[in-house]
Amino acid sequence: MIQDIIIKAGDELKKQFYSIKASRAKEKFDLVTESDLLIEQMIVRELKRLYPDYGIYSEETGTINENGSKRWIIDPIDGTADFVFGVPYFAISICLEQNGEVIEGYVYNPISDEFYHTIRGKEKSFLNDEEIHVSETVNISDALMAFGFSANYEKITKYYQQWRYILENCKKGMPLITPALTICNVARGRIDAFIDFGCSMEGQAAAALILKNAGGQVYNYDYSEWDHRKKGIIATNGKIDHQIKQLK
Amino acid sequence: MIQDIIIKAGDELKKQFYSIKASRAKEKFDLVTESDLLIEQMIVRELKRLYPDYGIYSEETGTINENGSKRWIIDPIDGTADFVFGVPYFAISICLEQNGEVIEGYVYNPISDEFYHTIRGKEKSFLNDEEIHVSETVNISDALMAFGFSANYEKITKYYQQWRYILENCKKGMPLITPALTICNVARGRIDAFIDFGCSMEGQAAAALILKNAGGQVYNYDYSEWDHRKKGIIATNGKIDHQIKQLK
Repeated sequence: MIQDIIIKAGDELKKQFYSIKASRAKEKFDLVTESDLLIEQMIVRELKRLYPDYGIYSEETGTINENGSKRWIIDPIDGTADFVFGVPYFAISICLEQNGEVIEGYVYNPISDEFYHTIRGKEKSFLNDEEIHVSETVNISDALMAFGFSANYEKITKYYQQWRYILENCKKGMPLITPALTICNVARGRIDAFIDFGCSMEGQAAAALILKNAGGQVYNYDYSEWDHRKKGIIATNGKIDHQIKQLK
Repeated sequence: MIQDIIIKAGDELKKQFYSIKASRAKEKFDLVTESDLLIEQMIVRELKRLYPDYGIYSEETGTINENGSKRWIIDPIDGTADFVFGVPYFAISICLEQNGEVIEGYVYNPISDEFYHTIRGKEKSFLNDEEIHVSETVNISDALMAFGFSANYEKITKYYQQWRYILENCKKGMPLITPALTICNVARGRIDAFIDFGCSMEGQAAAALILKNAGGQVYNYDYSEWDHRKKGIIATNGKIDHQIKQLK
């Protein structure tokens, strides 16, 4: 099963995280690239074996296997900067796409052992087999908001130009750079929204379906109808969207 | 032993983290305050029993037990915002102070099960009983730098005014708001420096000694000689300090 593949790869990823010993930044980034490739290879090997008719697309190497109407989209390590900096907030993110639509989503943080998943049709999302739901927050002033900015001034400035009112009037704003887990934290009601202009298909596609099936909403960064292949996301609990739209 | 007290409290903290179910921000912050108090009480009860002659100071309730020349300084949850947002990057931080000097330091992330400690005199620091050392980085351009800014614009602006050159010329900058763990990530060589004008005694005191005994350096935010009771820290691997000072 796909779950077993992900958990096995997660065990290896956990080992890699704990064992980074390099003392130079370049070596560390080389190591994370190695880990990325290793995890990808582990997953791709098993997927090819279990689902020989499906295509595969991975962040690290692009299209690996172009087959049929279904394809797996893989992000071996979502949150590589956290991984390198020693912050246990990274995940394996995998989704299954059929004719351009995401129909299954899986996100796994191997350190906290939090496994999120959803399957289209069931309209339910789960964290470690327990059903999850978005929060009840209806006002921006009560909202916990995450934004995709790192310590890069251009990115921060862009968010502050576009979302200043919300950043200054929400209950608490946080910079978080691991889209898959942060969108899942919206899905489980831990936070109320996540806004990121930079996140890629591999980081957001699985979690976006998990969020939708937990009662939330997703839009592209320009508020157009959600297309997981477009860069950027506005992910909400489905109850503060109009305010976010008005206040932008 | 103090280690046993911290690990037991960490088990409880882990449970609290996984079980947050509140749907409103206010309730979440009330819950984290409750967790904070609960963990503090657990630790204080045991410390009083095992070390009846020592004083105790805790973040949540201030001075609890003013006794003798030694006192424990406790931060039951360093990184409460991460705790609330669902990010497993928070810690219990405890140090022992004697006549105003820190002589033992303990920092524990119960989710990743990373336990850091040091004892003065031994001049060594440990992560889960393995000795740790700072990185070998000697140039800012190769450095991984963490700054204490959240999504608060005033804070971000202050850092950017004061450290712009470094933020724009280091290998990678990250905003991280859990001082104890981030200083420990400098100590273990994962990152090269951490700069935070806002962190408090409870969050920084234990980790600062861990860093020093792992080969690093700590200064107050104004570059004066380290006093753990002063707000703010510049924590480095001890090899890029002069550059940081020059480039400020």
